[in-house]
Amino acid sequence: MTDERIITSLTNDTVKAVRALNMRKEREATGRFLAEGLKFIGEALDQGRAPTMLLVGMEARPHPLLDRAKAATLKAGGEIVVVTHPILEKISRRENPQTVLAVFAQAYTPLSAIKPEAAPCWVALEQVRDPGNLGTIIRTADAAGCGGVILIGDCVDPFSVEAVRATMGSVFAVSISKATPAEFLAWRQGWPASVVGTRLDATHGYRDADYARPTLILMGNEQAGLTDDLAAACDVNVKIPMRGRADSLNLAIATGIMVYAVTDSV
Amino acid sequence: MTDERIITSLTNDTVKAVRALNMRKEREATGRFLAEGLKFIGEALDQGRAPTMLLVGMEARPHPLLDRAKAATLKAGGEIVVVTHPILEKISRRENPQTVLAVFAQAYTPLSAIKPEAAPCWVALEQVRDPGNLGTIIRTADAAGCGGVILIGDCVDPFSVEAVRATMGSVFAVSISKATPAEFLAWRQGWPASVVGTRLDATHGYRDADYARPTLILMGNEQAGLTDDLAAACDVNVKIPMRGRADSLNLAIATGIMVYAVTDSV
Repeated sequence: MTDERIITSLTNDTVKAVRALNMRKEREATGRFLAEGLKFIGEALDQGRAPTMLLVGMEARPHPLLDRAKAATLKAGGEIVVVTHPILEKISRRENPQTVLAVFAQAYTPLSAIKPEAAPCWVALEQVRDPGNLGTIIRTADAAGCGGVILIGDCVDPFSVEAVRATMGSVFAVSISKATPAEFLAWRQGWPASVVGTRLDATHGYRDADYARPTLILMGNEQAGLTDDLAAACDVNVKIPMRGRADSLNLAIATGIMVYAVTDSV
Repeated sequence: MTDERIITSLTNDTVKAVRALNMRKEREATGRFLAEGLKFIGEALDQGRAPTMLLVGMEARPHPLLDRAKAATLKAGGEIVVVTHPILEKISRRENPQTVLAVFAQAYTPLSAIKPEAAPCWVALEQVRDPGNLGTIIRTADAAGCGGVILIGDCVDPFSVEAVRATMGSVFAVSISKATPAEFLAWRQGWPASVVGTRLDATHGYRDADYARPTLILMGNEQAGLTDDLAAACDVNVKIPMRGRADSLNLAIATGIMVYAVTDSV
């Protein structure tokens, strides 16, 4: 297998470089990220995205999807590396690692390239802090048929291992964009239909508002909610009713309820 | 302060006993669980639940809620223990622990004590496996105005530190019950209105079904979904539409969409 390099040393430079993708600084410097598992890689291939590096455990069993992943990786000029189980553990920082890992190029969609009419709903998140929340929101946005997720201000990295894991593959299915608040506010001026903020202090119920499609849903930070500047830039702010003792919903839950409210409305 | 014992040794027996509550076996043997932070304890007090033990860091600042928690603990025959920062770290297994921790008695509501008419919606979960999902579902059920959560079969412990943390205090606000599948199926016969299962292979959309209140929503395991036996015991099974590439929603997200669909319907 002349196309496959074998690595057995935990201190090999390639191993070190891939492991370093667990750090945001290194992900941002290289523009790469790490994804785990064949199902995940298959999702990427279906979206026309090939790994820049495919890491295959020596114990990996033959699988048609693995063959497809190898072929796609080589065709795109990527590299296939065969590694030991301890290397898989070290890179994934898990005791039971997936037997196939892959490195992909990060892909951010510039705001200017977003086509609002391509989907009934889009999600913008301000200062989201929890990688599990962000990954789950990307998965939910995909499931609901949203076009993409826009990260405003100082957000957690959507390409962290934890966020990517929570997307369950949807990181390849919806567009991901990032913007400063000022960039977002300028771009929002051109939005063709409803921009809807979600705030606990809003007076409109989320079921009562009129959502003209494509609807852009704005969700705030886990603790602080949507800032005044962004809330003021919305056509309407709405709230999800709190009927018990809880004073708020988890951010990903609130986003799920909002995007399905929009995409289910006729 | 004669009512407050001071502990400084990490190997003190009380410290060991409280730390052991991180293990399910010990929680089940003692019927106790650990909760972190004054906000959380305040939520318990508001629901008439006092700690059996209050652990206060030496660095804890005076606070009216802390005084209230101390008084309630002593009144209920509980104990107040003043501990060092390293002890808080060790018990909570966190680098930045809350300065007040509390031990509470677990409270399960027997199925026979559930009054369906007391709330418009109830949630039953089959074999839920992820403590974060379970805690988030308890929080969401509370926010939506559900009466309680029923755990069917082999579920994760709702009183684990991770689950309790994710409830954000709602663990005290809704009833929690557990049942074997057989117990649940027998009890379900007496349910006065709709029992609705959620399955990816259902033919009814979740928006189209008729939910007679009180509605009992059944959600299945994260991987396998609702088993055939439980799905067959429902009046109707419904699905949430998957419009993108994702083949499912996170369980807590799906539950959130379902309970708000029920409680928002007129």
